[in-house]
Amino acid sequence: MAEQTPTGYTGKILRVDLSDRNIITEEPDDKFYRRYFGGTALIGYYLLKELEPGIDPLGPDNKLIFSSGVITGIPTAGSGRNGVGAKSPLTGGWGDAQAGGFWGAELKRAGWDAIIVEGKAAKPVYLWISDDKVEIRDASHLWGKATAEVQKQIQDELGDKRIRVSQIGPAGEKLVRLAAIANDINRYYGRCGLGAVMGSKMLKAIAVRGRKALPLADPEKIKEIAKWLSGILERMKTFTAYGTSEIMAAQNTMGLLPTRNFQEGQFDGFDDITGQTMAETILIDRDNCYACPINCKRVVKVGPPYNVNPMYGGPEYETIASLGSLCGINDLKAIAQGNQTCNALGLDTIGVGTTIAFAMECYENGLLTKEDTGGLELKFGNAEAMMKMVEMIGRREGLGDLLAEGAKRAAEKIGRGAAQYAMHIKGQELPMHDPRGKVGLGIGYATSPTGADHMHNIHDTMFVAPNALMRNLGIQEGLPATELSPAKVRLFDYLVNWTHFVNSALLCAFLPYDPSQVNDLVQGATGWDTSVWELMKVGERALALTRIFNAREGFTAKDDYLPERLYKGVGSGPLKGKGIDKAAMQEAIQTYYKMAGWDPERAVPTPEKLQELDLGWAVEELDKTVS
Amino acid sequence: MAEQTPTGYTGKILRVDLSDRNIITEEPDDKFYRRYFGGTALIGYYLLKELEPGIDPLGPDNKLIFSSGVITGIPTAGSGRNGVGAKSPLTGGWGDAQAGGFWGAELKRAGWDAIIVEGKAAKPVYLWISDDKVEIRDASHLWGKATAEVQKQIQDELGDKRIRVSQIGPAGEKLVRLAAIANDINRYYGRCGLGAVMGSKMLKAIAVRGRKALPLADPEKIKEIAKWLSGILERMKTFTAYGTSEIMAAQNTMGLLPTRNFQEGQFDGFDDITGQTMAETILIDRDNCYACPINCKRVVKVGPPYNVNPMYGGPEYETIASLGSLCGINDLKAIAQGNQTCNALGLDTIGVGTTIAFAMECYENGLLTKEDTGGLELKFGNAEAMMKMVEMIGRREGLGDLLAEGAKRAAEKIGRGAAQYAMHIKGQELPMHDPRGKVGLGIGYATSPTGADHMHNIHDTMFVAPNALMRNLGIQEGLPATELSPAKVRLFDYLVNWTHFVNSALLCAFLPYDPSQVNDLVQGATGWDTSVWELMKVGERALALTRIFNAREGFTAKDDYLPERLYKGVGSGPLKGKGIDKAAMQEAIQTYYKMAGWDPERAVPTPEKLQELDLGWAVEELDKTVS
Repeated sequence: MAEQTPTGYTGKILRVDLSDRNIITEEPDDKFYRRYFGGTALIGYYLLKELEPGIDPLGPDNKLIFSSGVITGIPTAGSGRNGVGAKSPLTGGWGDAQAGGFWGAELKRAGWDAIIVEGKAAKPVYLWISDDKVEIRDASHLWGKATAEVQKQIQDELGDKRIRVSQIGPAGEKLVRLAAIANDINRYYGRCGLGAVMGSKMLKAIAVRGRKALPLADPEKIKEIAKWLSGILERMKTFTAYGTSEIMAAQNTMGLLPTRNFQEGQFDGFDDITGQTMAETILIDRDNCYACPINCKRVVKVGPPYNVNPMYGGPEYETIASLGSLCGINDLKAIAQGNQTCNALGLDTIGVGTTIAFAMECYENGLLTKEDTGGLELKFGNAEAMMKMVEMIGRREGLGDLLAEGAKRAAEKIGRGAAQYAMHIKGQELPMHDPRGKVGLGIGYATSPTGADHMHNIHDTMFVAPNALMRNLGIQEGLPATELSPAKVRLFDYLVNWTHFVNSALLCAFLPYDPSQVNDLVQGATGWDTSVWELMKVGERALALTRIFNAREGFTAKDDYLPERLYKGVGSGPLKGKGIDKAAMQEAIQTYYKMAGWDPERAVPTPEKLQELDLGWAVEELDKTVS
Repeated sequence: MAEQTPTGYTGKILRVDLSDRNIITEEPDDKFYRRYFGGTALIGYYLLKELEPGIDPLGPDNKLIFSSGVITGIPTAGSGRNGVGAKSPLTGGWGDAQAGGFWGAELKRAGWDAIIVEGKAAKPVYLWISDDKVEIRDASHLWGKATAEVQKQIQDELGDKRIRVSQIGPAGEKLVRLAAIANDINRYYGRCGLGAVMGSKMLKAIAVRGRKALPLADPEKIKEIAKWLSGILERMKTFTAYGTSEIMAAQNTMGLLPTRNFQEGQFDGFDDITGQTMAETILIDRDNCYACPINCKRVVKVGPPYNVNPMYGGPEYETIASLGSLCGINDLKAIAQGNQTCNALGLDTIGVGTTIAFAMECYENGLLTKEDTGGLELKFGNAEAMMKMVEMIGRREGLGDLLAEGAKRAAEKIGRGAAQYAMHIKGQELPMHDPRGKVGLGIGYATSPTGADHMHNIHDTMFVAPNALMRNLGIQEGLPATELSPAKVRLFDYLVNWTHFVNSALLCAFLPYDPSQVNDLVQGATGWDTSVWELMKVGERALALTRIFNAREGFTAKDDYLPERLYKGVGSGPLKGKGIDKAAMQEAIQTYYKMAGWDPERAVPTPEKLQELDLGWAVEELDKTVS
């Protein structure tokens, strides 16, 4: 039992074993929550304690953990996020991802901080959580169905439109390694292939309805921050107007818009796919996540010959670039259609886009033929082929069955030098930010426990002038985006730890709170007398857990690399001929290890660093490496 | 020129070369102040940049730096402190010390943050700072005089009773290695022998009168903390009533009261020298430092046959123990007399007491004889001999001339095994806290850049229950005082960095502010958007600078040791037979190095750690070691 009435968190963790249908409630003490907060750190604790290295990520021994954080569900913008983690079937190492929406807050209102899903059901099931009541229900009738249909059917059969659903689509069922998990059918835990883990457990969905108020230690403190945010909404108005793809034009101008599988950094057709163009064409509404006034989410509608339904929302920057410029496509409607297919089938738009772009380059270089593609002219710029291929990946049809394995595995199968076109790290496909123009992100891609993943990093390493976040951490000077110096490594080190804190407490990365404000939110939620120091240490602790997880799986410094293409320049634009200096990057990564207190060969925290992070128990995990 | 009107700090540093009487004003920018804050960190910056390793600490190449911090002089309790530093003539390494009183705040009101004293005057001088006006004045008539007389004479000749004086006594003039520097004749920069550095420069005093208000960024924020403190004064009432020696009885009960040169941890006569006894006998008043309502300072008066004058204040716990129990003396009046002599002659009471106790043990073991002592029966318990010996050390008379070199050098001269009785680390004598009963402090004594120095550590490592300071840094569990585990090392690591921050921003160690409150004080003073993370990094930066300083001077891990006696138990009391486990302590120190990001052989931060601390410029200093 918890020692006191918890505030901010609920104090209850649900453990569901799908093999024997056992449902257990666990109640860690206050110290546990203060040490692990939720999200990445909490998931890291359980995965490290409970998974043996070497297990099959798609077997019953893997565990899938949904975890909110102590900020999830508090009444201020950015608190709608939730995390999920498991051993990744895409990388074979640490996997976690975060999503917004309303599901996480609903889970907390139901009285739960996290759900640990174990084992594997004998037939398709879904979980139904109605406050304290937890049920494993048959999902045979939902299996194979698209996300929108499933959500509606669950709400209908349980007779409550306010039920929130987290679920996989057909892609997860078919163990597509690019499969994702959806909140509210259009907010995605995108990366690491976690949808396939859920599918492997025959778990179609988790439906939640919560009717309890989340107790807060100091609601006034939270209200003050919410009020501050209301006061600066004007500053964020273009974000509201154009969403995440407001940056499209700037990315293109700087030569940082991934184009034709990272062969270029500028795209002729960029103007057709900007957030501004979307607002003027297919946008019909804007949407928000829990407690957020920003409305950065898009709602689009496209009629015949397309069929894009507003309920699936609309494409984000990452999606527009990965299904668009990266595939040489400037048809925004086709991109919206591809996005909808991803949302309906439960796919990671980034992984899918990058894998299709890889296939396009293979096709153009004769490594794939019409025979392979089933007659599709899989060339850059072919929107029709892109839309079709998204569907084929999600359903594992034809060439889609191969590409469903992700770019890395597909390249291995194709052979004949295809690997040079597979833009991945540790098996995870690159997101839509080109490290050639912001090298701090390059360190992040190379060293992220999840591989090439922009959600484990933040972009501030490219800022020349220090922003409020940096200043609040004592960084007085910004650095040129392409500078690769020890000072840049320091900046990266601080920001990556902060990011891992944000992914643990759970907060949207787009909210402009500085760490002191976030500390106020934590205090307002929990009543803990935390400081920014402690928050940073939670982030560092979270990252440490993920690195140990990978080290146990046999990952070493050798796995922290960048695709060779990034060491070469692009063909045109501001970064023409300017690849990342490979030797300098490798040196920066080594500097980072030493700066972070990591063993430079295993790329994992030293025992002393683990002790410093209050992770003494994890020291013995360092010895458990699979051979 | 500073870029903006500074708040909290003045933006001006005074550089005075006594050799050529050159006076310069330097105005570092805001970033410099935010990086170094003042005190230890600021002094570290200048000493590392401007001193060559291997210089004679008592020669003209040494520099003596007085530095306030960004909190010094703000209107709240604890802000009356100031720091001073130089290469130490006692240890041959890093030297710094802090003192309370009013002088630091006065310096800031005069418009100066720090004074760098260089070179050596041809004849005795003092410095007169009246706001912007700075004068080097003749001090021939003051040379050889006691501190009270000097202060009065300066105030008289400059015609202002409100002038504040920082000065050395005759001990500093005579280059006694235990010489200290006084603020207001009774607040001492005690450790490291810095009074001798000032004496070597023929600088008798620095007199200051400031008439400017210190600009503050947010006075309301400071007022709130001051108000909070007013509200908890009741909690501190025994501290007001009995001062620092309120802990005497508890120290004795726990067996932690250094007695007869650390041969014992309990003292029969402890009851005669407690703060309570003082309050009932010789105490006539209490005194405070700048802006402080606590009144922890003692004012005592003792008539014939003693002659203790209230103007010199009264003895602190450290003094009562070092001139009392450590010398086997339970005569509080004699201790007060000894304290007065130290204050009048400008001596470190700790160094003097520990050195006399050393001499007493030598005497009792036949290593010193009446011939050496000039007839004194220099035995434990002989108050008369103690009082006389204090005077002889301060004036370098007879045996005092040898003991004026400190216990380590005296032991080397005496030979014949005398070293076993010299309770010092790096040449600095042990303060009055026995690490056998609080092992965290043992790590601190061993690794402090200044040797055995309790002001470079704090005692909280002995707390079983976490206090507000620990909790605010994310330490959720206290540890038994004698536990020597990696968790204890972590606790030590956090607290030692915090202590070095406190010695940089400059704040009294007795105020119960938690780091978040101190951060509010920093913000209220400076307007900087700092966090506790940044403050901790300032502390770590300060400590790093001192370690590099020592490494340049040839110090290595071998110099981080404890006296052998501490590895043996005491003869009686709770710690009877319980010495520190030597192997465990050595392992803990190694763990600390690695945890702190230090090279374990040179015991100095790695280049990567320096980069992380924004001290990239100092990396090349690592190569400058003298052989």
